[in-house]
Amino acid sequence: MKNPNPFLKKIISRKNTAKILNDMSARLNIRILITDAGDNIIADIGRDGEFGNSSNSMVIYPINAGGDEQIGFVKGNEGCSLVASIIDCVAEIESDKRDLTSELLSKYREINLFYDFAENINIRKDFNDMAMLTSTQISELLNADSILIILKNENTGLLEVVFKFGADAAKYAPLKPEDAIIPERVILSGRAEIVNDLSTDVELARILPRRTGSVLCAPLRIQNRVTGAIYLIKENPIAYTSENLKLLMVFSSQVAAFIENGKLLQNLQETFISTVYTLAETIEMRDNYTGDHTRRVMDYSLAIGGNLGISGEELETLKLSSILHDIGKIGISDSVLLKPGKLTDEEFEIIKSHTLLGEKILKNIKQLNHIIPGVKYHHERYDGKGYPEGLGGGDIDLMAKIIAVADTFDAMTTDRPYRKGLSYDAAFSELKKCSGTQFDPAIVDAFIEAFPDIKEK
Amino acid sequence: MKNPNPFLKKIISRKNTAKILNDMSARLNIRILITDAGDNIIADIGRDGEFGNSSNSMVIYPINAGGDEQIGFVKGNEGCSLVASIIDCVAEIESDKRDLTSELLSKYREINLFYDFAENINIRKDFNDMAMLTSTQISELLNADSILIILKNENTGLLEVVFKFGADAAKYAPLKPEDAIIPERVILSGRAEIVNDLSTDVELARILPRRTGSVLCAPLRIQNRVTGAIYLIKENPIAYTSENLKLLMVFSSQVAAFIENGKLLQNLQETFISTVYTLAETIEMRDNYTGDHTRRVMDYSLAIGGNLGISGEELETLKLSSILHDIGKIGISDSVLLKPGKLTDEEFEIIKSHTLLGEKILKNIKQLNHIIPGVKYHHERYDGKGYPEGLGGGDIDLMAKIIAVADTFDAMTTDRPYRKGLSYDAAFSELKKCSGTQFDPAIVDAFIEAFPDIKEK
Repeated sequence: MKNPNPFLKKIISRKNTAKILNDMSARLNIRILITDAGDNIIADIGRDGEFGNSSNSMVIYPINAGGDEQIGFVKGNEGCSLVASIIDCVAEIESDKRDLTSELLSKYREINLFYDFAENINIRKDFNDMAMLTSTQISELLNADSILIILKNENTGLLEVVFKFGADAAKYAPLKPEDAIIPERVILSGRAEIVNDLSTDVELARILPRRTGSVLCAPLRIQNRVTGAIYLIKENPIAYTSENLKLLMVFSSQVAAFIENGKLLQNLQETFISTVYTLAETIEMRDNYTGDHTRRVMDYSLAIGGNLGISGEELETLKLSSILHDIGKIGISDSVLLKPGKLTDEEFEIIKSHTLLGEKILKNIKQLNHIIPGVKYHHERYDGKGYPEGLGGGDIDLMAKIIAVADTFDAMTTDRPYRKGLSYDAAFSELKKCSGTQFDPAIVDAFIEAFPDIKEK
Repeated sequence: MKNPNPFLKKIISRKNTAKILNDMSARLNIRILITDAGDNIIADIGRDGEFGNSSNSMVIYPINAGGDEQIGFVKGNEGCSLVASIIDCVAEIESDKRDLTSELLSKYREINLFYDFAENINIRKDFNDMAMLTSTQISELLNADSILIILKNENTGLLEVVFKFGADAAKYAPLKPEDAIIPERVILSGRAEIVNDLSTDVELARILPRRTGSVLCAPLRIQNRVTGAIYLIKENPIAYTSENLKLLMVFSSQVAAFIENGKLLQNLQETFISTVYTLAETIEMRDNYTGDHTRRVMDYSLAIGGNLGISGEELETLKLSSILHDIGKIGISDSVLLKPGKLTDEEFEIIKSHTLLGEKILKNIKQLNHIIPGVKYHHERYDGKGYPEGLGGGDIDLMAKIIAVADTFDAMTTDRPYRKGLSYDAAFSELKKCSGTQFDPAIVDAFIEAFPDIKEK
């Protein structure tokens, strides 16, 4: 025997309901037996009253609580019809109340998830971190099997899955033609879609007639541009509502903003680096380098930095200071900078001034003041015999020590109009020979360790 | 006489309630008179039944609907107690249901505002636009008189009102010491605050003992940094709840992210412009300018552009191309660029190549390809006698025509080591003389119109 219907039990045992039933029973002198649909007795009131005797046989009144289904019965004599009406009436309102409570709880849950989501999405710096938070929340709220974040590649026009979530999501990346149909449509129209039975989708059915399941798909939109979509897949069909779709759209709007902001920053960052790089390279061209010196010094420096465990903002500093290490040469006159023969002492002093000129130029750019040490001190020597200040060993800025090795190695190994460059092996020997005098031994070691990676580039 | 209580009326006229009352009246042979608290008759059932005759005087039963207040009365004989119990029971559940419905409606409203807010905040590019949307929503949801967005100035440490909303908000900007107390505390602790009676705030009471009203204040936080606060003021005290504060925190989190993203972009943009500017200015320094040539050419160009109604992205293009107009000079050798006397034809050809060298350099920076025309053609003449291509009139890029006027004017008016610059008036005459031959007349006119603004700088 199952447990008695808790809803019916709750109604009957309400303090005021119980009082009404007792009063009715007493006043009408009737026995009232209430059972649920499973014949469990919920109440049995007024055992002394009339109850189904021969002259007045037992009547059974169903309790419907306003719905179609019978949730229980009132059994007794004919007088019980009134009792049944009362219970029915109370049960109907209570049933409405129960529905409202459950809806309210679900809305509270939705609001709380919003609160959490809105507060947390903005502390994410990283796309994957943000995408994981979003997908976890969506999946919890909308009971999804797979969630894909899809972007349209601006160059190829193809849809690319940039993030996937869920145990089965792997099978959707890369997107197969049939899986791309709905996101394609959403991106094209800019309108979100619910498909609760994939087999009814005309376009999809043409390609894959037996596909089942339900999907929600919302565009990633910034202002009037649609750049991609969030695609939510439920393998076994489920009845998604427009409320569900609206919820997904809130998430998609936040994801779109996150992606867009990242793109804007990245684009500006790239513009900045590539402008600075091009100008630096143009300046180096005056110095008889045949091109790509800046690129190689940067690559070597970053490889050394990576080997030494430098990361994040420090690596950015290393990148910029290696690109701009010779910026001061812009102020050295051709007659000195381009002199083919041996320099006089005075001329050498002028050449040496490019380190201080670099500092002077960069001092004008407050946001780049942090790269000055790398630029200013890249001609210092480990033994203290370098310039401009003759600093030794540990007093020299790490970035400068790295750039010194990278710069010297590239200067040795590249061809100039007036001489051929050394082989890598010969240049390595030279670096090792100068390790501990010109160069910091730790940097030389790091360079040699990192070099196999460099050669592969 | 007032209208009958609609809630009581609704309960009594429910189909099943009405049926119960009729059945009761018939079965118990009683008259049932139901009135609301204002003595309006809601129902009068069974006029044939007993009712307050001498042997069985009328009894009055209050209807409380589970609350303390009496919402109506059942009047009749003693048998009516049961009727009153039933109505009371139904009214109590209906009253719960009414409360739930109203709470649910308010949650739906909150969710819908979230939806709208989350979808709309991200399409705002402009801080004021975003702040207005946010404040309108907050004000509607939380019934605020004033809303302030406050940022802590990174240099001075002072709190600054960067946006205000509401009819009375003007009196809070700039912030007076007493108005800064709560935001200061919130920014310092990073914890949001509710103060429902300002006169109870110990710190505030010390400064301003008679201040009344209620406030909510939420920090603007990104990761672990608090950069400011949203401050909501209600002049007449109101009972704000922790739910209200939570809601404000969702908005504050979105506003903080918006501000932070803007700052990141702006900072990078400033780094970019100031780096490019410094490098360009360094290159100009070789050309015997004594400094600030780049700044002045940029200022003049932007003034002309502004006068011509150029704005937005085009103005950005003008700014960058005016800064970088002579970038190609980096490739011209000192012997030609710095020659004090008259140039040979061959040397002049070399000088002219700086326009094409500029194009060549900028071609390497795909994000700056849009500024090439301004750089390449800034030595074309309106009459077609310029270089590098001898383009005429309308064929010349607008940016280039603007830079030509700005550059020539600055070249004429600044001192060089070997000659003194012209006065502004003499240079104006020169510009006018060359209007229609060397320069586009429309640009010369725009420059002369804009010049009063320039002189004020």
